[in-house]
Amino acid sequence: MQSGGRFDYYSGLYADRTYSMMSSEIRELLAVTARPDIISLAGGLPCTEVMPVGMLTELAERVFREDGPGAMQYGPTDGYAPLKRSLCMVMEEEGLRAYPEEIIITHGSQQALDMLSKILLNPGDPVIVEAPSYVGALNSFMSYQPEMFTVGMDGDGMLLGELESVLLRLRRSGKRAKFLYTVPNFQNPAGITLSAERRMGLIELSREHDLMLIEDNPYGLLRYEGEPLPTLKSLDPQRVVYLGTLSKIFSAGLRIGWAFAPPPLLEKLLLAKQSADLCTSALTQRIAHAYFQTQDWRATVARLAEVYRRRRDVMLESLEEFFPEEASWTRPGGGFFVWVTLPPYLDTKSMLARSVESKVAYVPGTGFYPGGRGAHEMRLNFSYPDEEEIREGVKRLSKVIRREISLARSLGLDIAGDEGSVTSGGG
Amino acid sequence: MQSGGRFDYYSGLYADRTYSMMSSEIRELLAVTARPDIISLAGGLPCTEVMPVGMLTELAERVFREDGPGAMQYGPTDGYAPLKRSLCMVMEEEGLRAYPEEIIITHGSQQALDMLSKILLNPGDPVIVEAPSYVGALNSFMSYQPEMFTVGMDGDGMLLGELESVLLRLRRSGKRAKFLYTVPNFQNPAGITLSAERRMGLIELSREHDLMLIEDNPYGLLRYEGEPLPTLKSLDPQRVVYLGTLSKIFSAGLRIGWAFAPPPLLEKLLLAKQSADLCTSALTQRIAHAYFQTQDWRATVARLAEVYRRRRDVMLESLEEFFPEEASWTRPGGGFFVWVTLPPYLDTKSMLARSVESKVAYVPGTGFYPGGRGAHEMRLNFSYPDEEEIREGVKRLSKVIRREISLARSLGLDIAGDEGSVTSGGG
Repeated sequence: MQSGGRFDYYSGLYADRTYSMMSSEIRELLAVTARPDIISLAGGLPCTEVMPVGMLTELAERVFREDGPGAMQYGPTDGYAPLKRSLCMVMEEEGLRAYPEEIIITHGSQQALDMLSKILLNPGDPVIVEAPSYVGALNSFMSYQPEMFTVGMDGDGMLLGELESVLLRLRRSGKRAKFLYTVPNFQNPAGITLSAERRMGLIELSREHDLMLIEDNPYGLLRYEGEPLPTLKSLDPQRVVYLGTLSKIFSAGLRIGWAFAPPPLLEKLLLAKQSADLCTSALTQRIAHAYFQTQDWRATVARLAEVYRRRRDVMLESLEEFFPEEASWTRPGGGFFVWVTLPPYLDTKSMLARSVESKVAYVPGTGFYPGGRGAHEMRLNFSYPDEEEIREGVKRLSKVIRREISLARSLGLDIAGDEGSVTSGGG
Repeated sequence: MQSGGRFDYYSGLYADRTYSMMSSEIRELLAVTARPDIISLAGGLPCTEVMPVGMLTELAERVFREDGPGAMQYGPTDGYAPLKRSLCMVMEEEGLRAYPEEIIITHGSQQALDMLSKILLNPGDPVIVEAPSYVGALNSFMSYQPEMFTVGMDGDGMLLGELESVLLRLRRSGKRAKFLYTVPNFQNPAGITLSAERRMGLIELSREHDLMLIEDNPYGLLRYEGEPLPTLKSLDPQRVVYLGTLSKIFSAGLRIGWAFAPPPLLEKLLLAKQSADLCTSALTQRIAHAYFQTQDWRATVARLAEVYRRRRDVMLESLEEFFPEEASWTRPGGGFFVWVTLPPYLDTKSMLARSVESKVAYVPGTGFYPGGRGAHEMRLNFSYPDEEEIREGVKRLSKVIRREISLARSLGLDIAGDEGSVTSGGG
């Protein structure tokens, strides 16, 4: 029990699933790294300084002027209809066409992940995820006690041969995966994008094994180079539940996400939403809708992408300049994160305390795997710290790593095989 | 399956619990009764016209001016600390003292109900509820497949003898109820308040049987007569999880509720909140805090209570004037609802279609019981319609009921025993 060593009087009352709930490593870290003297490359926060305060105030004013009582009232379970139309417009920007009736607005896309887990997962049901994968998704899935299967990645995303092995193994044992979860664009945490060819291959394999896909796409519009790739949802609409969010392109503080799902699944999500929280805030939905109605949102996304692109460039340049040759990392074409692989004899979890002493923080790799792996990997964020902080943070971190490597060498710990990683060949 | 008769391609994928999720009868009704020519006594909406639009705009302006970037950002899982202090002040208004560290802010108190169900309920676990009970709570509980036990009520709330029987029955079969759920003040749907004496009795019984209580108190501050009663939480803090909400005293559109729970349970709720939606909207929490900081919120609650008291009075007077003597109803001292019991040979569900033809709507009783009862009962709401609508609505409804009674008599259907009800003796 995670009750801080105290006797837990209530332990006889908990559901079995409660023992499989894990605290996010990120959350506990954020508490430490909030200290102003520490440069945090740990979080996954968007940059909110880009939004002009005057514009936000105008949006709120407009919403209250047009329908104050409506904004303060309960709303429909599926979401505020005008905003649903705006969200369809956002999806169309990536070539994905939807009718407003096909989506449900959720309290952040995290809520969609939790509700999908709730309506789909019995204890022991197989679920397939990328390794590494988004920790928030893993937390939602794990809380419903599935059996987790992982598929490794290279620079082009999921290794389809590995996926096929998993699917064949499941088929032989008479099991069927409830779904595969993927972040195909600029993945959190690895920064990797599933290539066009792999997308087609993934859809083919999924058809062959009757596999449902959850496509989580928070970063798709934050592309810093190259051409957009087709969404999985557009390649096979009946097989894919698509998740979107405004957290990265407008505001995380509004907590607005959505799921675009085939009708029978959408109905189940509506039932789950009723018992989860009745409805999403009428006020935040109206503010978001007013934003799309009155602002040049595409220009704002372009401005955001430009800020992030420069920060990514500074991070990649700094890594090149400061990091030891034993380290390798991914080169994201968008999104928020770079994934770093250190020599296998290093442990990023135990190194974190020394790193925080040196006033820089990151997220150790293990939290992004359902079990045991990732001990010598780490996630670095470049969306929140500014360019100067990124450079200084990477510099500080490189010193910590070099010290660790020297120490390991002096102890003879560096003679061990590489277990393989998503960044091998890079660096 | 509730997929509208279509073949559900996904049915092989659903979790077992999904088959126990029920659509709220209220939700499906609201769709019909949104027609402007129908007087709806069906919903449970607060009156939002009382809040001046100018004040709301000022609050938003203040929030964006003071910390726009913070309002647009992710926030802590447990909630915005300054708002937590404001919520403690709200609880103190009913004599309940809490530290901010003892509460978690949720996306409406519905989310607290869902998360408590998730962390506490294995399939088959016993749960005890009042009969009738809040349909949103029943939906949350049922979605985790418990075994439901009910305790009847009279004008003073739960019948403790009946509760004791349930507890003894459970003890004999070697089972322990995970919790008892109660809305002690002006209950939704019955409008009944648990008397001071019964509160003490309930606590004593709970101690004897080691029973945990969930005390849901959305209406406590909306009291139209008499003195406030002590919260159950204040009578036995370690045994009670207390739920509060701003939906009825400030705004439902902000979706802000909270749970005041013993520390080990609070930790589990925090874990559940992380996977449920990461955090509640930073913007709505700041607006709520600004409201408590800058406005005379007690005066607003008093003004709201005055509006509602008058509407309740009009409803009770109209019922007295128009309803047939075969009907009985509760006389709520606060809150939003009156519970009506009709003769047992009437069916409020089938009567609803004819009622909507006569341009008045209500909620049939069956949705408020976990199984089968309530067929000749109904819930009437007086918080949302204005005084004129209430009077006209009750008048229209009385004609429908009188017609039904005549019809039943002419068919000889009126010769049946009363099954007993929460309103017997009233009317």
